[in-house]
Amino acid sequence: MIGVGIIGATGYTGGELARLLVSHPQMELKAMTSRGNAGQPVDAVHTYLKGHVDLDFAPSVDGHDDLDMVFAATPHGVSMEHVPGLLETGVKVVDLSGDYRLQAPDVYEAWYGKAHSDPGNLDKAVYGLPELFRDEIAGADLVANPGCYPTATILALAPLYARGLMTGDAVVDAKSGTSGAGISPGPRTHHPNCGGSVIAYNTGKHRHQPEMEQILHKVGKGGAVLFSPHLVPIVRGILASCYADLAEPMSAEELSSLYKDFYRGERFVQVAGEASIRAVAASNRCQVSPATIGGKKAAVFASIDNLVKGASGQAIQCANIMFGLPESTGLDFPGLGV
Amino acid sequence: MIGVGIIGATGYTGGELARLLVSHPQMELKAMTSRGNAGQPVDAVHTYLKGHVDLDFAPSVDGHDDLDMVFAATPHGVSMEHVPGLLETGVKVVDLSGDYRLQAPDVYEAWYGKAHSDPGNLDKAVYGLPELFRDEIAGADLVANPGCYPTATILALAPLYARGLMTGDAVVDAKSGTSGAGISPGPRTHHPNCGGSVIAYNTGKHRHQPEMEQILHKVGKGGAVLFSPHLVPIVRGILASCYADLAEPMSAEELSSLYKDFYRGERFVQVAGEASIRAVAASNRCQVSPATIGGKKAAVFASIDNLVKGASGQAIQCANIMFGLPESTGLDFPGLGV
Amino acid sequence: MIGVGIIGATGYTGGELARLLVSHPQMELKAMTSRGNAGQPVDAVHTYLKGHVDLDFAPSVDGHDDLDMVFAATPHGVSMEHVPGLLETGVKVVDLSGDYRLQAPDVYEAWYGKAHSDPGNLDKAVYGLPELFRDEIAGADLVANPGCYPTATILALAPLYARGLMTGDAVVDAKSGTSGAGISPGPRTHHPNCGGSVIAYNTGKHRHQPEMEQILHKVGKGGAVLFSPHLVPIVRGILASCYADLAEPMSAEELSSLYKDFYRGERFVQVAGEASIRAVAASNRCQVSPATIGGKKAAVFASIDNLVKGASGQAIQCANIMFGLPESTGLDFPGLGV
Amino acid sequence: MIGVGIIGATGYTGGELARLLVSHPQMELKAMTSRGNAGQPVDAVHTYLKGHVDLDFAPSVDGHDDLDMVFAATPHGVSMEHVPGLLETGVKVVDLSGDYRLQAPDVYEAWYGKAHSDPGNLDKAVYGLPELFRDEIAGADLVANPGCYPTATILALAPLYARGLMTGDAVVDAKSGTSGAGISPGPRTHHPNCGGSVIAYNTGKHRHQPEMEQILHKVGKGGAVLFSPHLVPIVRGILASCYADLAEPMSAEELSSLYKDFYRGERFVQVAGEASIRAVAASNRCQVSPATIGGKKAAVFASIDNLVKGASGQAIQCANIMFGLPESTGLDFPGLGV
Repeated sequence: MIGVGIIGATGYTGGELARLLVSHPQMELKAMTSRGNAGQPVDAVHTYLKGHVDLDFAPSVDGHDDLDMVFAATPHGVSMEHVPGLLETGVKVVDLSGDYRLQAPDVYEAWYGKAHSDPGNLDKAVYGLPELFRDEIAGADLVANPGCYPTATILALAPLYARGLMTGDAVVDAKSGTSGAGISPGPRTHHPNCGGSVIAYNTGKHRHQPEMEQILHKVGKGGAVLFSPHLVPIVRGILASCYADLAEPMSAEELSSLYKDFYRGERFVQVAGEASIRAVAASNRCQVSPATIGGKKAAVFASIDNLVKGASGQAIQCANIMFGLPESTGLDFPGLGV
Repeated sequence: MIGVGIIGATGYTGGELARLLVSHPQMELKAMTSRGNAGQPVDAVHTYLKGHVDLDFAPSVDGHDDLDMVFAATPHGVSMEHVPGLLETGVKVVDLSGDYRLQAPDVYEAWYGKAHSDPGNLDKAVYGLPELFRDEIAGADLVANPGCYPTATILALAPLYARGLMTGDAVVDAKSGTSGAGISPGPRTHHPNCGGSVIAYNTGKHRHQPEMEQILHKVGKGGAVLFSPHLVPIVRGILASCYADLAEPMSAEELSSLYKDFYRGERFVQVAGEASIRAVAASNRCQVSPATIGGKKAAVFASIDNLVKGASGQAIQCANIMFGLPESTGLDFPGLGV
Repeated sequence: MIGVGIIGATGYTGGELARLLVSHPQMELKAMTSRGNAGQPVDAVHTYLKGHVDLDFAPSVDGHDDLDMVFAATPHGVSMEHVPGLLETGVKVVDLSGDYRLQAPDVYEAWYGKAHSDPGNLDKAVYGLPELFRDEIAGADLVANPGCYPTATILALAPLYARGLMTGDAVVDAKSGTSGAGISPGPRTHHPNCGGSVIAYNTGKHRHQPEMEQILHKVGKGGAVLFSPHLVPIVRGILASCYADLAEPMSAEELSSLYKDFYRGERFVQVAGEASIRAVAASNRCQVSPATIGGKKAAVFASIDNLVKGASGQAIQCANIMFGLPESTGLDFPGLGV
Repeated sequence: MIGVGIIGATGYTGGELARLLVSHPQMELKAMTSRGNAGQPVDAVHTYLKGHVDLDFAPSVDGHDDLDMVFAATPHGVSMEHVPGLLETGVKVVDLSGDYRLQAPDVYEAWYGKAHSDPGNLDKAVYGLPELFRDEIAGADLVANPGCYPTATILALAPLYARGLMTGDAVVDAKSGTSGAGISPGPRTHHPNCGGSVIAYNTGKHRHQPEMEQILHKVGKGGAVLFSPHLVPIVRGILASCYADLAEPMSAEELSSLYKDFYRGERFVQVAGEASIRAVAASNRCQVSPATIGGKKAAVFASIDNLVKGASGQAIQCANIMFGLPESTGLDFPGLGV
């Protein structure tokens, strides 16, 4: 059994990691840390884990010699304080924050508003999107787990960039459930404000925009990514609607074929006709639905559960690869559907 | 025109008062106060009032000689600091907080956790449920506007208490939208926590319980009220499901007739077959649906919009009565239905 | 008083017309027709109209000599059977269906799947978007009330087309509440299917696409409109997110100024910072929020209540103009906000 | 491996059975039948099963010699046509319909509106609530899987009936998500009608009422069950709020202790402080939260996922017992929590 710890485990992604790990046949959850809740039973905070996780929150993983692997579910800016020390102890790390996703420290500073305190490890960090970087992840000690919006967006657009089929920029209009905002209450996710409404926010200013661009430009050729996030009144799930001009006209069938080829053999990516969130809810799947408008514009929709394929499930998928396990170990279940 | 002020106007009931008052043909909104937002335009906080309310938040109504009427939308414990001074200046006051609803200061202290600072005005305060206390409201200078849960519950149960038809206690299982919790974000109304869920809370411990009992015992004869509130993932609306044993068996038709008689001529109470919130959403109406179970138990459902008939609309209804206007002035519109 | 009839009044837009008309000071609802429900009380179907509408559904408006005006809330394909006869009797007509929106009969046939049975009146029909065609509406006997998606989209993009600021095509990613689908239950709006989900549908194939294009190309200069509708789990409201390349770079401030100039004096269009549906819910308002991404792409968001500004409210706004009334008569109330 | 078939597999409970069975280590799904969809791939209907279920719908299980076990997900009235034949072939059957839940044919006829066509098997059928009838289930060939409302209600009230602690009748006010209404669209579950609303329906007339009573009277001593179901705008989940007078006053702590004793060792019942649906969503758990109001009235809340513990999960739990497997095989995962 691989010994696993989660640091910063009081938030949604920390709880979700634990929820998934209790059914993982080859990983054993040894420690969950929290600054604010240290000493409390984990199931007093994450009540749904009662009977499944019999741990108290620890103040840190120091002294836990039984860990092979740590998931950092700490906030942006906090992960980079912990990661260097963790790596030194020889554990492998998957960081769910944004701290190791952007390769250039100045880009990090521009978008996250603080200097990067661990620039030396940026080069070692591998971007944890297995469908594109499986081999690098296999050899990595540090994986930067993708953001939720970038996971859906990159999977939607990668075939177009990889094959160089686009001209001009891509517009990404994404709709996210509220769990993406995290566990801290605030005005935007206050139910009377967001229930029964749709809110456009941070247009062109969201931190996930440079992340999408960096990766898609690594994958292939294409324009900028113009990112327009929206909040919708659901708890779990993202639908990313991506639009780009095709350099050459293609039929919907050609586009669909191209996507099916690109993702052939991928367990967690499914090329489908109609995009909907319920089909992937609570699963590690991404449903990708390519369409065309007027023959010249591609409209590609990708749906994921933001807490699973968009965060904790994908982190476990990466960890499986890092430890040589079958990639879908502990993750191979369908979406809720209803 | 009756000059009107709203104190504590940054919350939901304050904004809702303004929303309704801009269409009131005989009241003119002269001042809205806020401690925290003084100096800011009202429509910067309540953006939906843009083009309708051209006021800045004032720090207080001091110096506003043009007010005939003040609505106190201040929190529990704060209203009673303001009301005595307001009454002394000769304005009429409708207080939307709980400060003047309970007649006994010791009961107030037991449920609200602090001593009442203005016990002298408790006797003067009239409970602002027009369907039951219309005459007293007409002569009042101070009206204690009912809580949202009590409005629905009392309208559902008043005929049974008034006619002495019950035996034993009443159970009130109420379902409320999240706007009832007010404008301040917190864990319970954080969308990821309450969206897609139903939560039972404060069973038997909610401050509205003694208010319901006090009024129903004034209205007639019957047992205690056992109150069990629930949060449901909608923004506006309350459905109160009320259960009580009938002293004598009645058919559903007899019960319905009795309710129709009791509320005959009431503009804002409608005896209906099926209870639903959408039919009354955004209106000042209460839909009351009496049913029986097994002939011996009455099951009476009442639905309201908690911000209108459960708060700001009812406050205006009371103010209309206090100033001798037709009771439905500015309030006589249907619910949204859809 | 202007005598008003509604034909096809059992659906959502018919009920909404009645809901709004009962508060209209200069229109009187004289007749509501229904094929399926003729003879039934209107408030047995639209229960929220109880106490407000005391009519039975009539089989037709034949013999109603007291009508000056008829709203056709009949489905696509049915309106054109009724309109010629209505016009012959001398009443003015606002048609809420799609039958008179597209000027070319062959385009109608291509998108609606049947030949147009009344091509002779297509030329007389004026597109009922008052902010753009106020003068034509004033002189019209037949107004084709815009679709819900086109209302939001055209108001969002009209300034760019009118000023010729765009290059290339516009992408319109719209999110609609479920009431837009009408009163008939079906799989897509079955709550277990759409609740907690977002669904992309009819990408590039929705009938509102040619309507948007026809009007925007009449308004000014710009590319095609590529329309991508989505269903979100709310009842009322549309947010249309519109993206277009700017021919010349503009700052967000310049864009905002341009929009404020364009809509100066418009009672029902409000240029705002952040777009949200709740601010306009249940009102006749459109909130337009222009933004830029990277200086070269305009992102303009428009929100409306699909049943009010997107249907019945706008129809009444047109009727007000047709009868020389102040345009906002009966419609000048704020959105719910919460 | 135990060979398993599902008849009537196009509905929600059929799909949910398949969703759960694909992760079951000792059951293998061999056949899914459908009258209307025979010949179609299962994943064309249940798209979330793509990559997990590689079957076409069969017209019937005739000729499937590899089945040890059949789940009947057929509607009420249809199951009883199939069950006798299935039992004759020697397979074990769990029936998810209401056909074998009520022991007396005349009670069945009174509540289901048709004569029972297989009264001979009513005696053999065991009520499939493992927490109460584990031993009987172990020896059964035919299990009548409980209804969703009865599962929550009986688990909430069983300790009170078993210990004879009540006096008078129990009131059950239950709130259900819309998936409980099944896959066929209809007016009540049409999103514009039920979204943003709460609806009370079938008060005292729901078919689950006699089922609850029959079982609770078998479990112990107490009054009638007065059942009042409500629809809330969520997809999955039931919260049953149950109220009963205590024969002797008890403290909340005493009540909680009693419940913990009663359910000690039960894997799928958890006695908790606060009741909420999200904690059990998508799991086979029931969270039971006992409280008191005024010392004399018990208020017990039970939450389940209506499709899992309220239907398909419980059916698998029963099947595990029938085949001597550990009861939680394939079902031992936490609720979503968020």
